[in-house]
Amino acid sequence: MAVNVAEEMAKTHKAISIAEFFEKNKHLLGYENLQKSLLTVVREGVDNSLDACEEARILPDVYVELQKKANIENRYKVIIEDNGPGIVKKNIPKIFGKLLYGSKFHRLRQSRGQQGIGISAAVLYGQLTTGKSAKIYSRINDDKTHIYELHIDIQTNEPVIVSEDTVYGSGHGTRLELEVKGRYVKGRQSIYEYIQETAIMNPFAKIVFVDPDGEKFEFPRGVDELPKEPREIKPHASGIELGTLLKMMKGAKPKTISGFLAAEFSRISGEKAKELCVLANVDPKVSTMSLTRDEAEALHEQMQKAKLQNPPTDCLSPIGAKPIEEGLKKELVPEFVTAVSRSAAVYTGNPFLVEVGVAYGGNIDQEGPVHLMRYANKVPLLYEQSACAITKAVIQTDWRRYKLSQSAGALPVGPMAITIHFASVWVPYTSEGKEAIAAYPIIIKEVKLAIQEAARRMGVYLSRKRRANEAEEKKALFYRYVAETAGALHDLTGKDKEKIATQMSELINEKLKTMIVEEVEEEPVEQEEIDNEIPDEDNGEENGVEKESGE
Amino acid sequence: MAVNVAEEMAKTHKAISIAEFFEKNKHLLGYENLQKSLLTVVREGVDNSLDACEEARILPDVYVELQKKANIENRYKVIIEDNGPGIVKKNIPKIFGKLLYGSKFHRLRQSRGQQGIGISAAVLYGQLTTGKSAKIYSRINDDKTHIYELHIDIQTNEPVIVSEDTVYGSGHGTRLELEVKGRYVKGRQSIYEYIQETAIMNPFAKIVFVDPDGEKFEFPRGVDELPKEPREIKPHASGIELGTLLKMMKGAKPKTISGFLAAEFSRISGEKAKELCVLANVDPKVSTMSLTRDEAEALHEQMQKAKLQNPPTDCLSPIGAKPIEEGLKKELVPEFVTAVSRSAAVYTGNPFLVEVGVAYGGNIDQEGPVHLMRYANKVPLLYEQSACAITKAVIQTDWRRYKLSQSAGALPVGPMAITIHFASVWVPYTSEGKEAIAAYPIIIKEVKLAIQEAARRMGVYLSRKRRANEAEEKKALFYRYVAETAGALHDLTGKDKEKIATQMSELINEKLKTMIVEEVEEEPVEQEEIDNEIPDEDNGEENGVEKESGE
Repeated sequence: MAVNVAEEMAKTHKAISIAEFFEKNKHLLGYENLQKSLLTVVREGVDNSLDACEEARILPDVYVELQKKANIENRYKVIIEDNGPGIVKKNIPKIFGKLLYGSKFHRLRQSRGQQGIGISAAVLYGQLTTGKSAKIYSRINDDKTHIYELHIDIQTNEPVIVSEDTVYGSGHGTRLELEVKGRYVKGRQSIYEYIQETAIMNPFAKIVFVDPDGEKFEFPRGVDELPKEPREIKPHASGIELGTLLKMMKGAKPKTISGFLAAEFSRISGEKAKELCVLANVDPKVSTMSLTRDEAEALHEQMQKAKLQNPPTDCLSPIGAKPIEEGLKKELVPEFVTAVSRSAAVYTGNPFLVEVGVAYGGNIDQEGPVHLMRYANKVPLLYEQSACAITKAVIQTDWRRYKLSQSAGALPVGPMAITIHFASVWVPYTSEGKEAIAAYPIIIKEVKLAIQEAARRMGVYLSRKRRANEAEEKKALFYRYVAETAGALHDLTGKDKEKIATQMSELINEKLKTMIVEEVEEEPVEQEEIDNEIPDEDNGEENGVEKESGE
Repeated sequence: MAVNVAEEMAKTHKAISIAEFFEKNKHLLGYENLQKSLLTVVREGVDNSLDACEEARILPDVYVELQKKANIENRYKVIIEDNGPGIVKKNIPKIFGKLLYGSKFHRLRQSRGQQGIGISAAVLYGQLTTGKSAKIYSRINDDKTHIYELHIDIQTNEPVIVSEDTVYGSGHGTRLELEVKGRYVKGRQSIYEYIQETAIMNPFAKIVFVDPDGEKFEFPRGVDELPKEPREIKPHASGIELGTLLKMMKGAKPKTISGFLAAEFSRISGEKAKELCVLANVDPKVSTMSLTRDEAEALHEQMQKAKLQNPPTDCLSPIGAKPIEEGLKKELVPEFVTAVSRSAAVYTGNPFLVEVGVAYGGNIDQEGPVHLMRYANKVPLLYEQSACAITKAVIQTDWRRYKLSQSAGALPVGPMAITIHFASVWVPYTSEGKEAIAAYPIIIKEVKLAIQEAARRMGVYLSRKRRANEAEEKKALFYRYVAETAGALHDLTGKDKEKIATQMSELINEKLKTMIVEEVEEEPVEQEEIDNEIPDEDNGEENGVEKESGE
């Protein structure tokens, strides 16, 4: 019996293309409902534009327009245009028409995109929901504009070019036009919110947004300098899996194993490489090709155990405290602003750093919880707030020390906005939807340290403000008696009444100023203690991600 | 400038294989930490074995063994063997050595696997963490055993065969041996828990599990009949995206558009197909190839609007109320058990049904919340409980009506186990990790209805039990006076004292029995009202998944 059954079953086996996979699983990529889908399309386009500009060292001008299609419910044309470097003609079809294709996946350096799925998935979503091809215009400063209409062959995951044309066009940049099913909303988790939050943490970018009613919103540049350019780094030995090491050895150029280690890993010198080989009982001069699996495993073990320097951090491109403050000032007009940009740390071999901006009062006057804006590699994260390491760190911080009220397990309450930026060569997203950062203890710790520094400054400001208010009240009280007392003194001493009043006012002013300063210095804002139990680098996923406890 | 930049950037663009993608993103497939990873490997193997047996109509015998590797921390050999049909020789390499390959993705019928990723991802995880190839033995009843050692070429996502051999072997079945990094735990979210829960809801399977200490656990068969075989169905018009329709038309065999519609969709007759064409202003006789995009869109709109019968439900393979009860009895030995198997409903064009089993008391004596066991297509879901539609439905049920205590927003409390089975041709998992079901309102509603029917029966049982207890107490009270009263009556009437006592006892028994029945009938368990606002079929994702509100 079973022979036939097995043979019958064999006939049904076949390969599935990644495009087919995501056609059926589009919710995994952020296309869960019409509101989020429209946002995801815009986000993928804007992320790509900003990445391209930054990589080409061009101050970004990004234009986003949404047009509501007449007579068709829930149908929009999305236009995203940038002044980036453009894309060379032969690469246009694959970049927009093939999933898992791109420049960012194979290198270790900070960028918004990292998977090679985003923009082609937006094209796939458009064709799936409207049957329409994407239209792409690209200029690379050679006086030509290449225009493609294309979609994806879902069975093969290859681009299908519907039309192509080249016309005259000066300058450089890329324009994408997509027709998609979606729903446009205002308020929370809206495209406007996404663009405004992008403008805050990318103050070197100018963004113009035209909404479906034709209303135009301009987000001007706040600073005229790009963040520093990130460099590509080699992987760090501490985060490497044995299988990945074996794969790297197979494709290695250096002939000897010690040469390979020194060439392909961060922080392994020639000397250190030889030392590791000796510890693993492997001849440093042996060829990578003739190493046995067991030898490789011994070497891998030594690489995990070795005390190596943390990887270099110039693969990161922080925004910087000053630009973050400028971004907050220009978009929110607060009465107080401060920002902290921490130095780099490492999770499972990946360098990362945390930046926090805090803005208080002024135009920020909402009631209830503070407005928390989360970012990964400069991209705002609008969904899955409670699942994110950033939110956990904010909630775990004791905000009452910094003069804000807070219930247990909740965000603090007050007229305040917090921006928290996680920058890394590889963001450990909890899903392809790229909405939440996995809660590695070292990440939580770094976020908390950054928050505390910024919050402490804000606490000092709030204390001072409170003292100043109190002093003002006292001053007003004293002034009320100045005229009367001056009159009495004039009668008593015969001196000029006006003069006495002026001197008394000056005296009050002077006295109260000293009082404020003294009181603030007397009562500094308490610094929260950070749990020192958390190791500075946590090695591998082993102790890495918070374990789920079920319920 | 930009020409050069664009050309420099172009050099770095390249394709990413799906194996590379998941090498870097293994947490997306359930390989998040060592404990969960070991479970995921076992789960993928057991799911595959059970699917193969059921498809070949063989009562499954599944053997699972974990061996701890000596001298290497966190290293296990996982062995999974079944008596299934085996796999024909030429398909073995791709089934285990290529991601996105299989028989289940392209057809609409209930099975455990659906993506074509699971078992090859387990092989990938093993090679990644240990550098070892997988070993597969397969027999298809032709007196041969084919043995392969293989792993995946990560750059190409193709199998690499390390060794192959054919030896004599009678019978049929498949055996997989994998070496992986993992951590073995007992208790919640353990492999033991996974296997026991599998045994409960797959009572037609015999499972043997040998743990790393060599202890052997046998889960015998509870019923000797397989669930009914599911049939493959055509897609339903109500859930189809325009882009998918266009793709299907391109590859269609029937020449005319009306013939295509009738042949390729559920519940569209030849007559109905013509009617839809006329409504869309399309000639029913026109060829699928010559239809314009706008015509296709008009047709798509009519297909969405049409009042069509729900799809046939013989694509589903429910377990059935009786086998669920047997499964609960054999594994948990409760004092009361009941199960409900509902008829099918439809979400976004996909048929599904819900089955609920409830077991109370007996060997179930835990304190605190009830033990909730969630299943999708007969597979236990051990993680992400709170994100799951099933959990939401349980929490939204008012259990106090059924004599259990419950706090707002929490599971009920009591010595009870609930198994809830969601069966569908396509399970809307919230991630590839396959741990939680998306909360479509129609799914929540169906789960609640099934729970209520089972819970009502349990409520009646608990009421009756309470009455019986009360009656026993009364009876005991009466008995205390029987001897005394009988003595007095004997003195009064001269009749036999023993006889009087017996008659009185019988009378008390009789009277109390009636009392219990009457009281139960007088006070029936209240039935909870179900919100009738939810439409019976919710059309498309549009109103489908609960929207996230952020915080």
